[in-house]
Amino acid sequence: LLEKPPGATVCEVEQLRDLADRYGVSLYATWHSRHGVAVATAKALLKESHLKSATLTWKEDVKKWHPGQEWIWQAGGLGVFDPGINGLSILTECLSEAAFVTKANLVFPANKAAPIAAQLDFVTQSDANIHADFDWRQCDGEAWSIDFDTDKGLLSVLDGGAALQLNDEVIELSEHSEFGEYQAIYQNFAKLIKQRKSDVDLTPLKLVADAFLLGSRETTEPFHDHE
Amino acid sequence: LLEKPPGATVCEVEQLRDLADRYGVSLYATWHSRHGVAVATAKALLKESHLKSATLTWKEDVKKWHPGQEWIWQAGGLGVFDPGINGLSILTECLSEAAFVTKANLVFPANKAAPIAAQLDFVTQSDANIHADFDWRQCDGEAWSIDFDTDKGLLSVLDGGAALQLNDEVIELSEHSEFGEYQAIYQNFAKLIKQRKSDVDLTPLKLVADAFLLGSRETTEPFHDHE
Repeated sequence: LLEKPPGATVCEVEQLRDLADRYGVSLYATWHSRHGVAVATAKALLKESHLKSATLTWKEDVKKWHPGQEWIWQAGGLGVFDPGINGLSILTECLSEAAFVTKANLVFPANKAAPIAAQLDFVTQSDANIHADFDWRQCDGEAWSIDFDTDKGLLSVLDGGAALQLNDEVIELSEHSEFGEYQAIYQNFAKLIKQRKSDVDLTPLKLVADAFLLGSRETTEPFHDHE
Repeated sequence: LLEKPPGATVCEVEQLRDLADRYGVSLYATWHSRHGVAVATAKALLKESHLKSATLTWKEDVKKWHPGQEWIWQAGGLGVFDPGINGLSILTECLSEAAFVTKANLVFPANKAAPIAAQLDFVTQSDANIHADFDWRQCDGEAWSIDFDTDKGLLSVLDGGAALQLNDEVIELSEHSEFGEYQAIYQNFAKLIKQRKSDVDLTPLKLVADAFLLGSRETTEPFHDHE
């Protein structure tokens, strides 16, 4: 069981997946945000809609959510993509088609090797544009949402996958288990082990690697955790 | 037919591959260096050997080989990975097992958005270490080689895949066709079209994306094409 991100690189996890296949054991690369109570319903609604565009907003205060985490600022530590990949895991689960990065801008503090903010553009197979905005400099609460603009209206996945609205009206959802997203994760894992199957979807990590490959870089003011 | 690199991102080409599959047409993502006359022989020899370690050296003078190519210095332009991916395409073709990037250092000129040099470390599934050294600041000829240290001796793929040595002794190879690597590419493409099959191995591009994802960054002196 590999919790997100499943590894430091795409090829590393593909090798693990191949090893699991070869030895007939189960590898489960999980994305906890996909198990938010809003996600399955959003996915079902999107399947019946035509997507025109989408906006992913993943903003939080790094000092509140990642205090003293030095590794997250190191090369390979993902920076703001550490939370942002949660948004990408929901996005790619909900979309009924593939998407890829067409443009990316990564904002690095002058004293850090990982980005504090990023803006990404994607296009889906049917030509819908998706924009993502990741920012760790948000001091006023959190914004973890995806707005899907569809022919049926504006579908909004909110609170990191815990709430759902259609045209600003709340859609009732089943309640979270007391263990949150992790109950579903361990239930899936138990099922995979019984079936000796693996579930390794690396799409969110691939999109992040593509953003680093393609992205322009911008330097911003130094970041200091304790100020 | 997509000549190397097959696209700007990994996910973009995976989408093309899926589209080709869906419509029953052939997509061929080629890596011209894999068709150097030394490659198939090196691969066969390595299959019968135990690899201990390998060193990939891909050095050339960017002013000689890429004069005035502004795109190559832009974000997503790959920089020194444009030639370096040729080396990676030979390496991954010759290896009989998977490898992934464990460490990378990318050297950017202060005025450019793509690296002028890079050092990479890989590990193979059976734990052999591979080091790669890419440099565009080589003024004294080219170094396009891979040295495989094996239990049968030192196998060296030289001249970008055109020559082969075992323990410094030249191995005789068939002659290149007058069209170089491209005769084999078009023959393969014709075969794929007849069979309505695709051949899309994205391993070299995935390794490069992983290097960008994982790599530390170093800034060096500005680069000017005309000096």
